[in-house]
Amino acid sequence: MTLSIDEVNRVKLAPPVEGVLLLFHSRWSPRSFSEREVSPADLEKAFEAARWAASSSNEQPWLFLAGARNSDTYNKIFSTLVGFNQTWAGAAPVLILGVASAKFAHNGLPNEYALYDLGAAASYLTLQAAALGLVTHQMAGYNHEAARQTFGIAEDYVLGSVIALGYQGEPAALANEQLLGREVAPRQRKPLKDFVLTSWGANEGS
Amino acid sequence: MTLSIDEVNRVKLAPPVEGVLLLFHSRWSPRSFSEREVSPADLEKAFEAARWAASSSNEQPWLFLAGARNSDTYNKIFSTLVGFNQTWAGAAPVLILGVASAKFAHNGLPNEYALYDLGAAASYLTLQAAALGLVTHQMAGYNHEAARQTFGIAEDYVLGSVIALGYQGEPAALANEQLLGREVAPRQRKPLKDFVLTSWGANEGS
Repeated sequence: MTLSIDEVNRVKLAPPVEGVLLLFHSRWSPRSFSEREVSPADLEKAFEAARWAASSSNEQPWLFLAGARNSDTYNKIFSTLVGFNQTWAGAAPVLILGVASAKFAHNGLPNEYALYDLGAAASYLTLQAAALGLVTHQMAGYNHEAARQTFGIAEDYVLGSVIALGYQGEPAALANEQLLGREVAPRQRKPLKDFVLTSWGANEGS
Repeated sequence: MTLSIDEVNRVKLAPPVEGVLLLFHSRWSPRSFSEREVSPADLEKAFEAARWAASSSNEQPWLFLAGARNSDTYNKIFSTLVGFNQTWAGAAPVLILGVASAKFAHNGLPNEYALYDLGAAASYLTLQAAALGLVTHQMAGYNHEAARQTFGIAEDYVLGSVIALGYQGEPAALANEQLLGREVAPRQRKPLKDFVLTSWGANEGS
């Protein structure tokens, strides 16, 4: 017996905090995807959210290559994934590779915030996807050089994550015990005091 | 005559799209801040959202230095800002500098996603702030080397943005015409087709 989708989502839900949007606490990154396809309209809504992310000098340096299953783009992205990610990500109906220009369009100077802004846009995308009842799982685990070659991505672009996107599947559908174990484990985060150093006026707090 | 806060927020609102959360379309980056202070509890809620952002290997590499006005942290951050940003950001009651470790804690290897993940966490923070009725404005325009020196930030940390956070102020309170012009101008974003390349199956769409 393993957990159902509803049960695992209850395990993954972060402890609610009054005033904090449920979206931040309920979004997580499953590896089990159902066979249900994603409509082009819903995918467009996820990108519409990404569109309005903030960026340095409003450069909007991000570019997303998105492929539905069986498309050339999907197959190319999948082929670059590391073995572990290939054991589960092929069940996702959509794979997306995010990249960003690290040169400002207006003057060709280096944009040191390209990767930072891409991370922001991707997070808007994943949050909006969650709001639509979709799930996403971002992966750093792919062959970056192979991705550059297969898509002809120039050196002045930086590479972000591959995003698997679709509807959540039953944990039991995962291929092995290692995947299942991760799927049903509670989420862990550092306490605030470990990553926020606050100073509240002349008498220093912490 | 210039625009009121309500009027400028109507100008800045992105055209609504059915099914896309209003939060993504209504959040923008004002430069006018009111004198109203931010409660520690609300600031904590913004960081609580950042806490649950996704990160490569769940490393959570981000670290935020947050200072309320008159604190040592605030003054140090303010001192690093470029001149243009100093003309307005000193009205914000809170300044935050985001940094991230670019070495994995468990093995010391380089984390190439540190900046990407910091961008994600900062965007969670800004979205949650917006949900609380706060506004934020992220800046790349500060002296990075001075920030490293004044806070003793090690070389294996990457620097993100400085985030001004507080309650929105009247546009007319801004110090000069250049600032006012930016404050009341409509927001611009590229159309989806310029940054999303979609492939929908064996017969390639675009």
